[in-house]
Amino acid sequence: MAASPEWRFDPLTGRQVLISPARGERPLRPGPSCPFCEGHESETPAELLAFRDSNSQSNGPGWRVRVVPNRYAAVRLDCSTEREKPGVGVAEVFLECPHHESHFRNLAPEHVALVLQSWRDRLRYWRTDGRLSFAQVFKNEGHDAGASVPHCHSQLIGLPFVPRRMEEELARAVTEGHCNFCEWIRSAKDCRVMESTSYVAICPPAPRFPGETWILPKTHAAAFEDLADTTELAGVLLDLLSRIDRTLDGPDFNLIVKSLPFHDTGVYHWRIEVLPRNTSTAGWEWGTSLLINTMFPEDAAKRLREAPRIS
Amino acid sequence: MAASPEWRFDPLTGRQVLISPARGERPLRPGPSCPFCEGHESETPAELLAFRDSNSQSNGPGWRVRVVPNRYAAVRLDCSTEREKPGVGVAEVFLECPHHESHFRNLAPEHVALVLQSWRDRLRYWRTDGRLSFAQVFKNEGHDAGASVPHCHSQLIGLPFVPRRMEEELARAVTEGHCNFCEWIRSAKDCRVMESTSYVAICPPAPRFPGETWILPKTHAAAFEDLADTTELAGVLLDLLSRIDRTLDGPDFNLIVKSLPFHDTGVYHWRIEVLPRNTSTAGWEWGTSLLINTMFPEDAAKRLREAPRIS
Repeated sequence: MAASPEWRFDPLTGRQVLISPARGERPLRPGPSCPFCEGHESETPAELLAFRDSNSQSNGPGWRVRVVPNRYAAVRLDCSTEREKPGVGVAEVFLECPHHESHFRNLAPEHVALVLQSWRDRLRYWRTDGRLSFAQVFKNEGHDAGASVPHCHSQLIGLPFVPRRMEEELARAVTEGHCNFCEWIRSAKDCRVMESTSYVAICPPAPRFPGETWILPKTHAAAFEDLADTTELAGVLLDLLSRIDRTLDGPDFNLIVKSLPFHDTGVYHWRIEVLPRNTSTAGWEWGTSLLINTMFPEDAAKRLREAPRIS
Repeated sequence: MAASPEWRFDPLTGRQVLISPARGERPLRPGPSCPFCEGHESETPAELLAFRDSNSQSNGPGWRVRVVPNRYAAVRLDCSTEREKPGVGVAEVFLECPHHESHFRNLAPEHVALVLQSWRDRLRYWRTDGRLSFAQVFKNEGHDAGASVPHCHSQLIGLPFVPRRMEEELARAVTEGHCNFCEWIRSAKDCRVMESTSYVAICPPAPRFPGETWILPKTHAAAFEDLADTTELAGVLLDLLSRIDRTLDGPDFNLIVKSLPFHDTGVYHWRIEVLPRNTSTAGWEWGTSLLINTMFPEDAAKRLREAPRIS
């Protein structure tokens, strides 16, 4: 049993880091057998949510999307009475498909809609539960994006506090009661990649990686988990991932769902961030916290916009 | 000719990113011939500094350490009168050895002392020049640490302003005129890895990666470039890198020289940070700016301290 996680603070740099030995126990390289494949349900903890065939059994085969606690959790929700304890939180894994597929873009649109539903439902669960202040759904695809298991999966980590970075962003989201994201969506014509009836995909003003793109609802909406139907969003996400794959040399990527913290009632505008990991962060970035990117957002948007259609 | 670099600011997140298309032109995978090897001097820009055999010619063979402008520079010092122009700065590359070696730890101690001298001399040059406010020397070894060329090399990037992160650290360095680093060096017994007459290697209070270790002078010194002899420091650095290699499964690493900004006269304590890149930053970290590490600094220090001697 690994030591309990702790937040450590460095007064010399002002840096706060979560130290979680349990997370270090995850295998660095997967074994010959994939624990996320259908038929291997006994290799993961018991499921928290699953979309299954009507005649299938919990924790057995017959599922399409399955959510389980993270066996190598960075944080643990030890006890409802210990909210302030360091290292408290939840860590869950979304097994996004029963078959051994490593590229999210290859999943069927109706399947991706189910994955988005599972993200929504677990965020709803924790908002209703009330013990956590913040949860983030994210996805790492490929080695360069930090994935340790190739089988398509995403994660949720929830905490009893709101990260400082998120607090800063919330403070920036509103000007005299108006949502700054709504205003930006209207104005960012040059950086627009594509749009559907309800969604728009835009390269942000200061992208961290070449081709970084955000998907946002056109109509103001603060919380991702208030989403009703996920079909249209699944189509937009797949289209964007396919464009990134075709125009940027098939990069590994991170996907991040940014949404209003649970106990917050302020102004925010949810979004999905897609970060192609085609450049790396090295000594310069770790030393200065200044990021260097190689592609202007308006140039990235043009390339993604003009990506040839798949015939 | 790539477009000039520009700093872009995102008012939605408060993020500032340098967009530098020129840097994107560097080859992602090195060709069959290494441009950093002796005999290939014509494949790099003309040298700024070289430690050479007395009978050798500039920009020809016969060097031991060679410093050249970065051909794929993120920033450029276009003109002395344009200090405030976005994207102004310098980017240099240190070719650390003439032969094709990819592991810094395999260089001879007297050779590493020359590399440290070259770092010191280029920092001294830019401090004297006066046009830059800040420069950072750093080194990326291996793919996971962001290196695009395997041949041992390091870099210097200089800017006409001090990064905000560095300003914050300077503000934290002093309490009532006393250096907080000096106090920490005396108190951090549990996290001490090794020491020599003048230097100590310590795992920091909130390490970002398992085994992150800092080398600091025991006697207060603000600027790395004031260093006189580099022999002792070379020995300490090689010993630390060897310990990290032997106890942490041979990780790629970043090395960062943190030193007082050029125009600053305040309290600071220079250090060399070594960051083993044995865990990756993924969606969670990019979304929240909260880092998760898997090893407590006191545990990492114990492992590094007790690393078996090389027989």
